[in-house]
Amino acid sequence: MRVLGIDPGLTRCGIGVVERTGAGKLALVECGVVRTSADSPLETRLLLLEEEISRWIDRVSPDVIAIERVFSQLNVRTAMATGQAAGVAILLAAKSGIPIAHHTPSEVKAAVSGSGRADKKQVATMVVRILELDEAPKPVDTTDALALAICHHWRGANVSRLKSATSREKSRVAALKRLKNVR
Amino acid sequence: MRVLGIDPGLTRCGIGVVERTGAGKLALVECGVVRTSADSPLETRLLLLEEEISRWIDRVSPDVIAIERVFSQLNVRTAMATGQAAGVAILLAAKSGIPIAHHTPSEVKAAVSGSGRADKKQVATMVVRILELDEAPKPVDTTDALALAICHHWRGANVSRLKSATSREKSRVAALKRLKNVR
Repeated sequence: MRVLGIDPGLTRCGIGVVERTGAGKLALVECGVVRTSADSPLETRLLLLEEEISRWIDRVSPDVIAIERVFSQLNVRTAMATGQAAGVAILLAAKSGIPIAHHTPSEVKAAVSGSGRADKKQVATMVVRILELDEAPKPVDTTDALALAICHHWRGANVSRLKSATSREKSRVAALKRLKNVR
Repeated sequence: MRVLGIDPGLTRCGIGVVERTGAGKLALVECGVVRTSADSPLETRLLLLEEEISRWIDRVSPDVIAIERVFSQLNVRTAMATGQAAGVAILLAAKSGIPIAHHTPSEVKAAVSGSGRADKKQVATMVVRILELDEAPKPVDTTDALALAICHHWRGANVSRLKSATSREKSRVAALKRLKNVR
């Protein structure tokens, strides 16, 4: 299974692709960051972001797209910009027909480092260890997106007592397809 | 000139269409609200919102799409949801090739009522007077979207000393088209 993690942002949107290579082993496929200039009109930035994320999806063909669900930690102005970027990413993922999962920052931290209150450095250290990298990818948005993808791999495997994440996602996609046919 | 105003929101997104019918006179064309259920997955809500706004644009063929630019007044959680809705609306408007304008809530209040600190009731009263309605459309998101469209009509006429809003918008669209061709 291949997971594309997106850490949404208007100035820097982190992308991290992680694949299960067998027996619980995870490997980095690719990672990077989509940047848009604060000098450009908002609509240009959102169009660019959509185009770049769309290229990532086409190129790496993920089985699941995991998007960070952010509620707090930011001021309102930053939250609006992050929300706009997240809206574009979620809409694009929904249209691609690929299952979408949302994880909160504390879920990601807990999955990767064992503590929901881990700091950025601890998360980066764990991403490097888990994926057997030489160093943490820069900028930090990229590492955060990788942590999100790792979180989805591990949480997905740990929810067997509940309805599995994958079947929930499949039913979401089916619902969206019904919606498309009806409308 | 026909302006489609959008007051972005995930639960209720206000839409108001206002036309100049000659000699500075403005008239209501149509207004309404797009609702999405908080019980639906986020991606379903954003898809629905996109589809409904897209139908509005197709049906009323606006010359300009005015979108409220929100920075403050909201808590972070609401700001994220509003940001997601705004992101979808702005992206859709950008893709339609129709010029986009952004106005802040205080610009809208000042244009419609003369004061940037007017309350919701004052704004509604002025919208009713300006468009010669019997009463303010409900819910308030609809009235806010009409106020935004009125604001764009009036501010557009008042910026002749600067580069006019319309020519700025045209150059934005041209820039977006160049971007599309290059990429």
